[in-house]
Amino acid sequence: MCHTCQVTSRDISRPVCLLGLGLIGGSLLRDLSALGHPAFGFNRSPSGTKAAQQEGFDVSSDLVATVQRAEQENALLMIATPMPAVASILAVIKEHAPSCGITDVVSVKAQVLDLVREAGLVERYVGGHPMAGTSESGWQASRKELFKGAAWVVTFDHAYDSPEGPGKEWIELWTDVVRMAKMVKAEVIPSRVDAHDSAVARISHLPHVLAETLAIVGDNGGALSLSLAASSFRDSTRVAATSPSLVRAMCETNSEALLVALDEALALLQDARAHLSEASPSMEELADNGYRSRIRYEARSGHSRQGADSVSPSPISGRPVLSINPGSPHWLRSLEQAENLGARIEVSVF
Amino acid sequence: MCHTCQVTSRDISRPVCLLGLGLIGGSLLRDLSALGHPAFGFNRSPSGTKAAQQEGFDVSSDLVATVQRAEQENALLMIATPMPAVASILAVIKEHAPSCGITDVVSVKAQVLDLVREAGLVERYVGGHPMAGTSESGWQASRKELFKGAAWVVTFDHAYDSPEGPGKEWIELWTDVVRMAKMVKAEVIPSRVDAHDSAVARISHLPHVLAETLAIVGDNGGALSLSLAASSFRDSTRVAATSPSLVRAMCETNSEALLVALDEALALLQDARAHLSEASPSMEELADNGYRSRIRYEARSGHSRQGADSVSPSPISGRPVLSINPGSPHWLRSLEQAENLGARIEVSVF
Repeated sequence: MCHTCQVTSRDISRPVCLLGLGLIGGSLLRDLSALGHPAFGFNRSPSGTKAAQQEGFDVSSDLVATVQRAEQENALLMIATPMPAVASILAVIKEHAPSCGITDVVSVKAQVLDLVREAGLVERYVGGHPMAGTSESGWQASRKELFKGAAWVVTFDHAYDSPEGPGKEWIELWTDVVRMAKMVKAEVIPSRVDAHDSAVARISHLPHVLAETLAIVGDNGGALSLSLAASSFRDSTRVAATSPSLVRAMCETNSEALLVALDEALALLQDARAHLSEASPSMEELADNGYRSRIRYEARSGHSRQGADSVSPSPISGRPVLSINPGSPHWLRSLEQAENLGARIEVSVF
Repeated sequence: MCHTCQVTSRDISRPVCLLGLGLIGGSLLRDLSALGHPAFGFNRSPSGTKAAQQEGFDVSSDLVATVQRAEQENALLMIATPMPAVASILAVIKEHAPSCGITDVVSVKAQVLDLVREAGLVERYVGGHPMAGTSESGWQASRKELFKGAAWVVTFDHAYDSPEGPGKEWIELWTDVVRMAKMVKAEVIPSRVDAHDSAVARISHLPHVLAETLAIVGDNGGALSLSLAASSFRDSTRVAATSPSLVRAMCETNSEALLVALDEALALLQDARAHLSEASPSMEELADNGYRSRIRYEARSGHSRQGADSVSPSPISGRPVLSINPGSPHWLRSLEQAENLGARIEVSVF
């Protein structure tokens, strides 16, 4: 370990170039810079750029110049914009950074992978998604240690693209993306894009759909309803305060998986409706099953780590851990197993 | 004000007898006792009773003896049990406390009023509902200042039962129920039972239905889904951790109003489903309307009072305030106006 910059052999081997300095990109820039790791970035909004510069960060609002600099320094290009900007960013990367590795933090992975394949960039791309959003956005929402203990999905679909497996450079890139996520204290969970998109439809996008719906039905009740609304309504509608454009970008680009989750929800609600309409109204089935599911989630997800009353200085993860040796004979089988278990990984050999 | 016991002329004029010492009854006993106001109670569970006694509270697990004592001391009887126990408690009150005033804290008001009317007790009953639940229950969940800033609905349906209006005793009882809620720092919002039940269906019971549903759909996604679940899923399913029997007691006894709210939700979700199934999937309508509704709720409900980062020593209520003079010529019109606005009240003359 370098005692000056705190970089160890477990850290990423190249600089990081953040394309987009919102909540996720901005928070990454803060953490990496604080660790002494070389990191710089681009932000579209001049006001955000100026604010970041005033805090001493190495940022620019010139996309082409930033991407060219990334190529010169062999940086890891991190696309940290909302989905609608990804295609145009990939075009700039293709033109101005012909060799850099690329990752992203977009919350839906299939559509990004499609764009990457269309652009012919799949051999130097590894997808990512840190589960660390809030209802705020922009540079002003960014903060240090946003990713501490959070899940960071890293995809590995390209490993199946040819029978002999991926090349050494892609494996090194994949390992560097994992290293970077771990540097900022995230827990890396490997997953292929379809499994990821199906999971986030259930636990991120459906919550948004239900929160918007509940907010409207509460509002329909007028002043008395809103005045009586207490913590159950407040917490259940919290994510409806997210900017509608961000909600749309997530849900609309993952509509296929979201429809599967939404149809399951509709079937449960129709069933509840039928039982509540009977002569002796009953919620037994929904209440019992919902309760059991929530308790399972609390037990399974390391939920207690989130508790404000925890006194443990280094919280213990609720996720199982698997050791991965990238490129070794059985590493893909281990990744599939981790995906299946929702396990975090340790990279055992570099 | 009495400087020894902190009781003022604005405080309730009689002792309070709590029938049930769970989260609500237990928290009331703590607050009233801390204020030096005479309060005693009954708890069905001997372990809860013993725990309360060991903390020095005046409690018993003999219901009949407790109700007889209330009659002797002319106490306000506060029914603080879940709905399924209310009918048997009313029968004991009818037999052993022929003159005490009665109130309750049950979360659905029409069915309680029906039982009270059936028992012939309506002339000495005023309904109440503090909006201060959590997902925990029982004496061990009770705590001081649970009601601070919370809405406490006080009903007034009996005022319309005869053309000449309610008698002086009922008006005094009504005023005492309001005083008691204000003593524990709640904000009193008058409402008739139907308006109350319709409102809580939207902002309390529907959130439970959606939380149970979301918990199940997340769980259906298996280990990867639960591992990736972050704050949106955690907050949106929080109330699914409520004991299923409590959820059922609320939702099943308010099924009529809940079905209205549920049907509104189903219509919005079916609409969203249709738009997400189009060639260009869209969530525009739901996301825009849900966002506007949530922002309206935040502005309207005094939401900022709940913020952990507030530095104000005496938080300012977001609710409008109306002054009420109980029994005066236009007081019912003022109560109706407060119900319509979701306004809190000050009782101006005693």
